[in-house]
Parts: sequence; C-alpha cells; structure tokens
Amino acid sequence: MNVLVVGAGSWGSALAVLAVRRGHRTVLWARDPEVSRTISAEGRHPRRLEGFGFPRELVTTSDVGRAEIADLAILAVPSSAVREALGLLKLPPRATLVSAVKGFEIGTGNRVSQIAAEIHPGNAFCALSGPTFAREVMRGDPTAAVAASQDGGIASLVQRSFSGSDFRLYRSDDVAGVELCGGLKNIIAIAAGIVSGLGLGHNTLAALVTRGLAEIARLVLAQGGREKTLLGLAGVGDLLLTCTGSLSRNRRLGEAIGRGAVPGAALEQSVEVAEGALACLAVARLAESSGVEMPITESVRRVFYEGLAPREAIENLMTRELKSE
Amino acid sequence: MNVLVVGAGSWGSALAVLAVRRGHRTVLWARDPEVSRTISAEGRHPRRLEGFGFPRELVTTSDVGRAEIADLAILAVPSSAVREALGLLKLPPRATLVSAVKGFEIGTGNRVSQIAAEIHPGNAFCALSGPTFAREVMRGDPTAAVAASQDGGIASLVQRSFSGSDFRLYRSDDVAGVELCGGLKNIIAIAAGIVSGLGLGHNTLAALVTRGLAEIARLVLAQGGREKTLLGLAGVGDLLLTCTGSLSRNRRLGEAIGRGAVPGAALEQSVEVAEGALACLAVARLAESSGVEMPITESVRRVFYEGLAPREAIENLMTRELKSE
Repeated sequence: MNVLVVGAGSWGSALAVLAVRRGHRTVLWARDPEVSRTISAEGRHPRRLEGFGFPRELVTTSDVGRAEIADLAILAVPSSAVREALGLLKLPPRATLVSAVKGFEIGTGNRVSQIAAEIHPGNAFCALSGPTFAREVMRGDPTAAVAASQDGGIASLVQRSFSGSDFRLYRSDDVAGVELCGGLKNIIAIAAGIVSGLGLGHNTLAALVTRGLAEIARLVLAQGGREKTLLGLAGVGDLLLTCTGSLSRNRRLGEAIGRGAVPGAALEQSVEVAEGALACLAVARLAESSGVEMPITESVRRVFYEGLAPREAIENLMTRELKSE
Repeated sequence: MNVLVVGAGSWGSALAVLAVRRGHRTVLWARDPEVSRTISAEGRHPRRLEGFGFPRELVTTSDVGRAEIADLAILAVPSSAVREALGLLKLPPRATLVSAVKGFEIGTGNRVSQIAAEIHPGNAFCALSGPTFAREVMRGDPTAAVAASQDGGIASLVQRSFSGSDFRLYRSDDVAGVELCGGLKNIIAIAAGIVSGLGLGHNTLAALVTRGLAEIARLVLAQGGREKTLLGLAGVGDLLLTCTGSLSRNRRLGEAIGRGAVPGAALEQSVEVAEGALACLAVARLAESSGVEMPITESVRRVFYEGLAPREAIENLMTRELKSE
C-alpha cells in the first residue's frame, strides 16, 4: 500500500516509521525542507525523537504533490494547520484520509472529520486516536489505539494496515466521540499539570482527572458520541496517559504554569504545540452552544486568556458544592 | 458525634485524624497495643505515616469494647480481618457502620456490605471509597471520595460528617458498584506495576489500565452496579490513582515482580497488605460464576499462584485477537 504521512512532528514521524515497519511504501511530508533532508541523509530527525534512527526505506519530501499516489493519507499536523494542509492535498478518489490530529479548528470548533467533509467530501475518513506517545511507538513498546470510521470496511482496512504485535488497533464507528476525546483530554492534561506544578499530590490529581472525564462525557454525549468510547482507549486510556505521563507536552505546560511560569510565555516556549491551550478557546464555545457545563475547560481558558491565578483556579474547582456524583 | 475507627493502618489512622479535624470525639482502635501506646504517648504512629503528628484529642485503644458508644464505626482493617473485626464489634442499634475496606472475603468473595448484613443486620451501612492516599489526606491535599449507602440519609450523614475544604465526599446509592470498584482496582494495579517493572512505557500502561476498566465494568454491571460509578471517583478515579501513583502498595508489589522478584516472596515482604494479591483469588471465582471474562485478573492470579512468568502474562494480554473495543 502507498502511505503518505502529512506532518513530520513526533507523531507523524513515528507513524511513518510504523508504516515502513508494516511493509508499506511510505512517504513522509515535512513542511520544513531541512527536516526532510536530515531524515533522508542522516536517518534521524533534526529536532524530534532524539536517539531514534529512521529506516532507509522511508522517503521524505517537502512536496505535498506526492499525495496523488496515496492509498492512505495520514494527517498529522497541528490542528491549526489542518485546513491549509487538507487544501494542499490532491487526493485520488480511492484514497482514505486518516486523521491523527487531536484538536479543533480554533475559529469554528470544527473537528477534522468536519473539515475533511468540506474539502474532500469524496474520500473515506478514519480517525486514529488513543494513548500513544511517539517515542514509545518508535521503541516498539506494546501500544493500543482506536481506528474510527463510519464505514466499518475502512476501519478494518486501517486496522489491518497498521496492527502488529507491538501496535494494535481496535475498530470503532464513533468518529465524533473519538475525535472529541482526543481533543478534550489535552485541556484536562494542562489542568492536571497545574495540580502537580502547585505541589499537590495524587489524590487531587485523580479527583481532577475524574471530573475532567465527567465534563468530557457531557460534551461527547451532547454531540452524539457514545459512552463506550469514553470508557475506551481514546477516552479514559488517552486521558490517563496525557494526565499522568511525563512525555505529555500539555501536562508539562501545565506543570510549568503551576510552578509559576506566565501562561502566555510558557506557551510560546513549548517546543511542540500544546494543543490544549488553543483547544480550550474553541471548546468553551462548543460547551456554551451545547448547553454543557465544563468548569475545568473554562478554568484553563481563564488561566491562559484572562489572567486567572492557577492556584485559585484549582481551589475553585475542588471546592464546588457538595453533591452526588 | 462519637466516631470509632477500627484498624490503625495508614488509612484507618488518617481517617481518625480527619475525624478529629472535623471536631468528632474519636477513638482509634489498634490491634497492636504498641501502636495504641505510641500514638497516645508520642503523637506519632510507630510504623506508618512517618513524619506526621497525631492530634492530642485522638483517643487510642486496643479494647474494641469502645464501640458501644459509637455513632459512626469506621472499619479500616485488611479484608482478611473483616469478619473477625465485625464479630468483635458491639454496635449500638443507632450506629452507622462505614466500610473503608477495599477487598473481598477470600473464601466467599463476599463484599463487606454482605458480611455486615450477616453480622450486624440492624445497623445502617455506608461504603467509603475513592482515590485517597493516606499521606496526602494527612497533609491536607484536596481529596475527593464517595460515600455510598442504599439509604440516602445515611450517605448524607457520612458526607456531612467528613467533608471540609480539603476532603470532599460525594453521595452515591450504588453500594455494590463502589465496593467492587474499590476491590478490583487493586488487582489491575498489580498488573500495571508489572508493566512498569518490566521496563515498558506509558502506552502499554494506559492500554492495560483501559482494559482493566473494561473488565471491572463487566463484573460491576453483572453484579448490579452502575456505569456511573465506573466513570466516577470510586471507579476511574481510584483506578488511575492506584495504577499510576507511586504510593500504591499494589502497584509497588507488581513493580517488584516485574523486575524479577518471586511473587510469593515479594508478597510476604510487603509492609502493608497488597489486597490485590488476595482479591484475585476471590474475584476469579466471582467472574466465573457471573460468566464474565476477566483476563487481567486471571493473569495476576496465575502469576501469584501458578508460576506464570510476568512477561508472558503481559504479552498474552497485549496480543489478544484484533477486534472492536
């Protein structure tokens, strides 16, 4: 199969390596020609996944025209670049578009499937999500994720194309639920990082993440997603990874803020995009238009954009009125 | 209110301190007279909660006859001692029995509420559970947990008696679900510890915990518990804490085994009871009689009692057949 991966950040690069391991003819598109050159010439990424070699079979390019021969095109760009990247892709009608993006379009709150339906209405769509740190996939650690498509045949195709003993995909047909969980957990992870950065312990973290899951559930159900997705790899699994794992950039951003960094400055200094800091803007609006309460998301938004003190934000969240769960 | 805490391990001791902080006349019963004496004379626990002082108002005793004046009797003994402790308690009819135990009776698989209904059928019952490391409660970190009773008035009473700005209780009426979640997560935590002890990363851990939640869900629903409990503090919250938090004794036991310790020897060396190592016996039987598949629980049981190699156990779990979630 011909696989094109659009975006050579950590996750896009790891997916491209995985595709090569599965025997696919794989092209990795990097916006920055230096990334493309270094991977080709030196078998390493100049800025990400330090210490890992890239296979010689991986072709890299900075020319997105290569999409024309793709059977699977995997989108792995920051959510802010999704519309532009989809606009550049010239997909053949048979190609399946796989989104590995976890975030929302800022202005509209659209999920990738919604943008894809606008720009590439004729192509099948699949969302790939779950608890997957790129470095651990590179290392071959056993990893499980979800391939969600409204078309069961497409979910099966993606599943078979990427599954092996170290990387396993489960099928789902809940595209909206999988996409929402993937984007929303980044916001909760920032709040989780703030808790740890403030010096609070695991009890507080566990309580916050549980309430985070509750507000994710409210929005997912309001948008037609399913409870099963919440309990699965794309829901609880990814939330747990991102809120407790040391490799999570959203969590790390929150930790820095909890320790006293200025939110705007910390965001600018983060090497890779912490999607949650942008997602909270779009999601706060989505929550309002869906009539859903999302106090953690709203607090994270206020910490970034209205100067709310991190300690005050966490205290407010932890002292809401006594009630049943 | 007169509060009696039965059991002076970490959690019983922390609950007794919490009761004092809430202004209750509190008696802590310790099986070992030395524990009782040291807390009274020196304001510290001789073997647990190192570095924390105990308030002077806390009365300690090794005479369980003190139950006769209790309004609330909190049971905080290892699950293997529940039946004996309940047999010793002479509860006045007005007293509410609160279980802070997370485990099962080995021979029968009974939950504490079921044993209590046998021995103290006239007393109201409430299960207290959630993500609560004792040290962090002592320190005053914001902590949230669940008080579950079939009698809403009793859940409210327990809620009001213990809630404050640093410790918040939520009400539930799903006693079976709350008790099951509290006991089952200890087994998954051992498996999570094995994953980390083997040197595998967060992806594998997140996948394992997610599948752990799925098997907890199957048994909870089969036994009449509710999905809402699974998603809440006693379910996901406590599972997350126990599987990722460094203070979890079940996780630590699993880590030692993953690094090569002999399971039986590691179990004997653990300072406090790792409930999961016993619970897997009772739960494997419960699962069988309920017709429910619990592969992680079954694997942990086989590691402890049938010599299954930890690495083989995890590999088997991570390479089950491809399917939808």
